[in-house]
Formats: sequence, structure tokens, C-alpha cells
Amino acid sequence: MGSPIVSSQWFQFIVIVLSVSVGSAARFDIPRLSPIRGTILKDPKIRSSAPVSKGFQTFYYTQTLDHFNYKPESYATFQQRYVLNFKHWGGANTTAPIFVYLGAESPMDGDLSGIGFLHDNAAPFKALCVYIEHRYYGKSIPFRSRKEAFKNARTLGYFNSAQAIADYADIIMHIKKKLHAMSSPVIVIGGSYGGMLASWFRLKYPHVALGALASSAPILYFNNITPSGAYYSIVSKDFREASETCYQTIRKSWSEIDKIASKHHGLSTLSKKFKTCQPLTSSSEFKNYLDTMYTGAAQYDRPPSYPVNEVCRGIDGSKKQDILSKIFDGVVAYYGSQPCYFNQLTDDSETYQGWRWQTCSEMVMPIGVGENTMFQPDPFDLDSFIKTCKGYYGIPPRPHWITSYYGGQDIKLILQRFGSNIIFSNGLRDPYSSGGVLENLSDSILAVSTVKGSHCLDIQPKRETDPEWLVEQRKMVVKIIKGWMAKYYADLKAFKLQ
Amino acid sequence: MGSPIVSSQWFQFIVIVLSVSVGSAARFDIPRLSPIRGTILKDPKIRSSAPVSKGFQTFYYTQTLDHFNYKPESYATFQQRYVLNFKHWGGANTTAPIFVYLGAESPMDGDLSGIGFLHDNAAPFKALCVYIEHRYYGKSIPFRSRKEAFKNARTLGYFNSAQAIADYADIIMHIKKKLHAMSSPVIVIGGSYGGMLASWFRLKYPHVALGALASSAPILYFNNITPSGAYYSIVSKDFREASETCYQTIRKSWSEIDKIASKHHGLSTLSKKFKTCQPLTSSSEFKNYLDTMYTGAAQYDRPPSYPVNEVCRGIDGSKKQDILSKIFDGVVAYYGSQPCYFNQLTDDSETYQGWRWQTCSEMVMPIGVGENTMFQPDPFDLDSFIKTCKGYYGIPPRPHWITSYYGGQDIKLILQRFGSNIIFSNGLRDPYSSGGVLENLSDSILAVSTVKGSHCLDIQPKRETDPEWLVEQRKMVVKIIKGWMAKYYADLKAFKLQ
Repeated sequence: MGSPIVSSQWFQFIVIVLSVSVGSAARFDIPRLSPIRGTILKDPKIRSSAPVSKGFQTFYYTQTLDHFNYKPESYATFQQRYVLNFKHWGGANTTAPIFVYLGAESPMDGDLSGIGFLHDNAAPFKALCVYIEHRYYGKSIPFRSRKEAFKNARTLGYFNSAQAIADYADIIMHIKKKLHAMSSPVIVIGGSYGGMLASWFRLKYPHVALGALASSAPILYFNNITPSGAYYSIVSKDFREASETCYQTIRKSWSEIDKIASKHHGLSTLSKKFKTCQPLTSSSEFKNYLDTMYTGAAQYDRPPSYPVNEVCRGIDGSKKQDILSKIFDGVVAYYGSQPCYFNQLTDDSETYQGWRWQTCSEMVMPIGVGENTMFQPDPFDLDSFIKTCKGYYGIPPRPHWITSYYGGQDIKLILQRFGSNIIFSNGLRDPYSSGGVLENLSDSILAVSTVKGSHCLDIQPKRETDPEWLVEQRKMVVKIIKGWMAKYYADLKAFKLQ
Repeated sequence: MGSPIVSSQWFQFIVIVLSVSVGSAARFDIPRLSPIRGTILKDPKIRSSAPVSKGFQTFYYTQTLDHFNYKPESYATFQQRYVLNFKHWGGANTTAPIFVYLGAESPMDGDLSGIGFLHDNAAPFKALCVYIEHRYYGKSIPFRSRKEAFKNARTLGYFNSAQAIADYADIIMHIKKKLHAMSSPVIVIGGSYGGMLASWFRLKYPHVALGALASSAPILYFNNITPSGAYYSIVSKDFREASETCYQTIRKSWSEIDKIASKHHGLSTLSKKFKTCQPLTSSSEFKNYLDTMYTGAAQYDRPPSYPVNEVCRGIDGSKKQDILSKIFDGVVAYYGSQPCYFNQLTDDSETYQGWRWQTCSEMVMPIGVGENTMFQPDPFDLDSFIKTCKGYYGIPPRPHWITSYYGGQDIKLILQRFGSNIIFSNGLRDPYSSGGVLENLSDSILAVSTVKGSHCLDIQPKRETDPEWLVEQRKMVVKIIKGWMAKYYADLKAFKLQ
């Protein structure tokens, strides 16, 4: 399997590919729900100094391909990867919990060091740490090879969230049985798409997990529960709060780009001006690059560097007078000095390919750009989205399925008297927080938000530079989980006495 | 579609077929979870006088064949039947609920009059009544014909409980949208297997149903949560409580049967003695007939006739001295005077065929006969069960799936702090009550049991002869549901004011 510690170079690769994935295809822009490790890119030095626990052990589970069907081919299996770390575990007969990180839309390798919640809390909780890879990613590929698995909708059909959380239930129960730890409380943890999975897992499998920490999980960004333009509104707000002049410069830049691009050799002018690695082929391609930079900066606007501030420092501090030169200085400030920018990699990363399928089947988040942002308006067009997906896979998405299966509409009305033990953590600078749960739904389905936080910041590794509000947010999460466990053990004791 | 009112002759047919189904194949005896209408057989006169509301309207919904897959063939659809009755409905803008009966393992025709809970409570609640047929039964058959649908595991694969409750969610949401009744509270109701579906529906789709009435739902008769022999222990207890001498006579009868059957022409002797419609081919065939009679009498031991008492009156009141003559008098007392008994019909009823698939795929209830009952011991043998199922369908059952997906183990520990608004109603004379939820799990997941009640008795139509304890049980159920609705409307009001 090779080393679980992934080089920062690898991260950089993934992140750039993701950036490209966001920009490609006309407004096929939904895959912005990128893996949380994306954030690390900005601080490779801090990243590589993050504490990586030793003692990871890799296992494979023979997983059922199709949990919801009894056709002979549904009995096919595949090898699903999971990793255990017993280093701090108190054991089955103690009050030590099992922390289970639910893999999301990428190979799990980076999660072992990237999910700070697990290794920062394993020792104080004496927890067993479990990481499970999501089906169709990394080494957890059905049909023997990625090429076969991704061949068409026929082989991809089993690649969806309901099957994925059923996988997680099977593996968790398998681990608990094998370790004779049936009574050990399980806390599932996930971020972004994985955060949705964590909250849905607690709702659907309360008999497997005692509670869930769902970090930056936009479970309400479906079926128009959240206004389509909310994501871009927050990106704009983040920039405006950082700097009004920066915000205005960006806002005005789009028509400048259009103006130049429409001229003879205009794209070539832009390519030179922005030192693009490849010649630009359209103005929308270029605008998507910038869009990706701004949204990335906002989504991962984390301390200590705060990428939105960096971009704006570049723009506002520019000594040039024309708008596009200022924007270029923002690009340099964000990416650092590079021989060229916006390198167009091929769209063949696992995350790009996997997430494209997921958004084209069930994860239909109708994100568009509304009025009054720093972007050009660009409403989400479901019909053209469906058409694009049909072109790729021959099947239409099911845009209503997520809310049919998991709910979401009137969530407080529904969950204030149903369910328990979920933390929805959000950073309000994260544009995805607009689709998150930002208020307590009951006395144990709780929202823990920070005004200055960003995407999945709370579950990333602790750093010495962490500001007080972040330290406090994490403390609160730990306190809540301890509360669940205390109640559970009191219940268990009463239960055993019966 | 024809008349929804089904003649009692039709009921008799179904019930006899079910009886046969129970007796066929060596200890393939699990399909004892028979439709609740089976009980009606004993009182055809009372049955036909049960009030049948008018105003049933039949509709068909274009249902997704496979909710959990995105293969092109999963997009296939079928027409699923549902019936609405608006007669008493207060309308979408009132506090009138929607009662939804979740169809179980039979065509839905008999449910329209057979499910007393709906038409007895529609008027006082001003409820809209909805009845939905379970996929693969009645007129809700995929693949255009029953013959195609039941061809093999490939076409039967989509026939399972997770798909069925996803169907129910889709249809309920469709109805609510069409009637502009999104805020109307939905109460799902089911009995026996349908009762399991009702409780599971509330657990999995709390955003679709406010609450569930799960009548005689043995959700704990899986994966050895309930001891295998519990069912037959209760049957024996029922008989012993009715009459010690009757119980002893039955207990001794099996070895008598074996003794005679082992003699030259012994089966012919038994055939004549018991006036069997066809010559017996084995002693186990005959013992299965009797087994079916005793278990049926116990499961449906309802007032005013109390079949267990009837059988025992026949046995105890017999003027004959030998054991088997007494047993025959019990048979006559139970079935009434007939030209012949135990008519061996072919096993081609929908319920028989459908339920056989369901038990061979996921509904694996390991019911066996333990020591110290009035039956001969006959432990459940999972290996031979699996072998039998493989022989039928070429696929093995998944005996752990039900508890993996729905839970069951340590149910009080799990649900005392999760979920809400489920009533588990049971009659303790029903042998299936041994696998039911018999204690309150929380302050809104409640058990309502009656000592003298039988299988699904509470949701059958009211009768003038109903004893006080049954009237009280039904009143309590209504009171609980009214409590849920009151809280819901208070929540809704607060929610709208936000």
C-alpha cells in the first residue's frame, strides 16, 4: 500500500486538478465541494509539520456491491480499504470510544494525517481510530479496476451515498464484533460531503453510531431549500468584508476581461498578461480560473494566512493602475510566484471523475450566481445540467432523491422531536455554510458555528497559530461528545441492570 | 379494477392457501407471518357486516424500480396502485391528518375494508385515507406481468423492504404535493410485516411520516434477538391456558401419529380418520396440517369465538377415547363440518410466492420449536434453510441485513434517545408478540399490549362484541396519536412564526 503519509507535492497535484475540475464545462461547476485537504496547499510547511500518529494498520473488507438488491450480480463483492490505529485505544472494556472517519470523494490516504480531529483527540479519549475509504475511490474500487468501474452508468450505478453509508455500517459492525467491542460508543466524523454522510449516517444507522460530527456539511443545498445563489453571495461577502476596493476591483474585472477577449488577439493578450501555462481558448475558460481562485480562497479562508486577505492584499497593493494588472497581482499573491499560472491538467483525477458522477446522479446541488455579487450573474440551469449529465453517462440525475431519502425541508420542524447526537459545525466564511445547519435543532442536534471559520477548519489538525475562537469551537465539540458518552454509559449501566 | 369489496369466499381461498404454504417443504415454515385478513375466516357473517366506506378512488403511480442504483435498468418504472378516500377529509388547510396504510405481503384489495383503524377513525379525525400496495403484489407488479416479475432472482431482486418503503415515501410525497397538503401530518399504519414496515418507515423517513402505528410487528424476531423457540412457546402457552387436558392431548398426539404412520397402510388409516381431501403422502405433511391449525388458532385467537377455545372444546368435549379421535374432533370444531379437511391447494397464491421470496432474501425469521412445548422439538436450521432458498432462487438469504439496516439489538438502549412517535401494539396471545416491542422505549416510542389480544386485532374493524380491553387499547392508541398531532401543530405554529 505504500506510506500513508502523502507528500505535499501530491496534495498540490490534487488541488490543482480540483481547481481545473471546477472550471471545466459550461457551468458544470458543482464539484466545488472539494476535499478538505485542499486547504493544506497554502501552507506546505505547516502541513508537513502536522503531527502524524504512527501505528496505522491497513485492512480490507469484502464488501457487498449492492446492499439493496438480491440479483445475483448484487452479491458481487469488492475489497474496501479501512485503516485502524490502536495506539491510544483504551480497549473494549473501558469507556473508550471508537472514532470513525467516513471517507469522502477522494482516496483516503491524505485523511490519515489530514483529519486532525482523530489524532488530536485519540489520546485524551483513549479512542480507537478508524478510517474507511468511500467506495469507488482509492483502493476501494469494484469491478477489479478503475477503468472497468468507471466504464459507464451500468458499472457506476452502485456508486452512491446510500450504498456508501451501508458499507460503513457493515465495516463498523465488523470491527466491533472482531474486537468484542459491541458496547463501545461509535462517533462518526466527516467533512464536506463526508460531513453530510456523517449526519445522514447517524440518522439512518443510530444503532451503529452513537453520534456524528458533521463538519461543513451543506445538507440543505439540495432541491432549492437553500437559495441557488447563496454560495456566491458568501464568497462576495467575504471579499467585501476583507476590502471594499478589492471587492469593487474584482466586480469590475469581468467586463474588462470580456472587452479584451472580444478584441482581435484578445485571448492571446490575456494569456500573456496572466502568464497562463497554456494559451487560453475562451474568455469563459479564463473567468472560470479566476472564479475558482476566488471561491477557493473564500471556502478555505483560514488562519493564519487568510487567503482572501492575501488575494486582496495583492489587488489593493498593486502598483499598477489598470484593473486586470491588479487582478494579476492578486493571482500572484494567492498562488505565489510561479513560472506560469492556471496549469490546465487533464480532468482525470479520481476526485474529478468520481465527483462528476456523483453530482450527475444524486448530489445535485443547484449552485448558481445571482444578482448583487462580485461575479457576473449566472443562474443554475437544471435543464442544461441534466442535458450535460445525460451526455456524459446516458442517464439523467435524480435531483430530488437526496431530500427524499434524507430529508432537509423544514429540518427543524422534523428533527426537533426526532433523532439526536449530531453536531453540525460550520465556519461562516465558508460559502458552503449557506447550505449548512446553523441553528440548534434540538438539545442534542446542535450547530457550532464560528464567524471567522472556513470549510472543515475545525476537524483539521491543531496548530500553534490557531486563534482563540477556533480553539474554543473545538473544545465545545469535545465537550458535547463527552456529554453524549456520559449519557450513553449511564443508559448502558441501567440497561445491564435490567 | 373491479370491486374493492372481496367476497368471503376469496378470503377463505387465501387463508387455506396460506395454511398449505406453511405446511409445505421441510420446516420452510417461516411464512407464518400471514396477512391479517386471515383472521376473518372464522366469522364470515361478522366479516361481511363490517362497515365498508364508500368513496375509494384508485390511482397508479409511476414508480422507480430501483431507488438505490443508477444503472440504466434501475430507471425502469412500474405502475404502483394506491387508493384514496376523501370522504371524511377535512382538507389541507385544517388540522386533519393523512392516514396511510402501508401494504404488506398480499394484494391490497382486502385492506380497504379489512383495516378497521382507517375507516373507524377517518370520520373523528377528518382524515384522508390512503392505501398503498406493496411492490410485487396485486396490481403493482414490475416487468409487465407476474410471470416475468417472478421469473428468477434477477427480476425478483428489487423486491425487498428498503425499496418498498422508498416507494411509500415517493407516493406519500406525491400525494401531499398534489393536494397542496405539505403540512398535513402523516400517520403510517401497518400490521404484521406491514407493521414492521410502518415502524421502519418512521425511523427512516421521519420527514415524510409524523408517526407510525405498528400493529403486531415482530421486528425483534431477527438475528436471534428473540429466542428461536419463542413463537411455539406462546402457542403452547395459549393452549395450556385454555385447557390443560387439551394441551396434554395435543402434546401426546404427535407420537401417536408417528406410530400409526409407521405401520403398513398407516398413512391411509390417517387419511381416512381425518377425512383428508387428498391421500396423505407423509406423516410430516399431516403434522404440518395440524401445526398450521394450532398456530393459526393461537395467532388469531380473537373474540368472540376464540379459536383456541374452539379447538380445545372439540378435543376436550370429544366422546371418543383415543387421542387421535379427540384431535379430529378438534379439527372439526375449528374448521366446522366439511366434506373433507386439509385440502391441498397448489402453492401459487401471490402471498405464498411473494413471501417465500421475501423470507429467502431478507426476512429471515429463525423460528423453530424448542423443548417443553406441546409440539415435537424442531430447531430452526439456518444451513438447511439457506440450502432450500438457494435451491429455489440460486441466491442465499442475507440473514443479518434486517438488523444491519433497521437495528433491533439493544433496541431500548438505542431508541430511548433517538427517534419518536411509534406505537408498537401487540396482543400477547399472538405468538409473534414474542418478537415484538413490549415495553416503552421512550416517552413517545410506546408499547400498547393487551394480555388477551391476538395478531393485529387492534387495527381490525370495530365490532359490537369487542371486549372492554380491546376498546380501551384502541382508545389509547387514538389518544397517543392525538398527542403527537397536538405537539406537531404547536411546533408548526412556532415554526411559521420564526
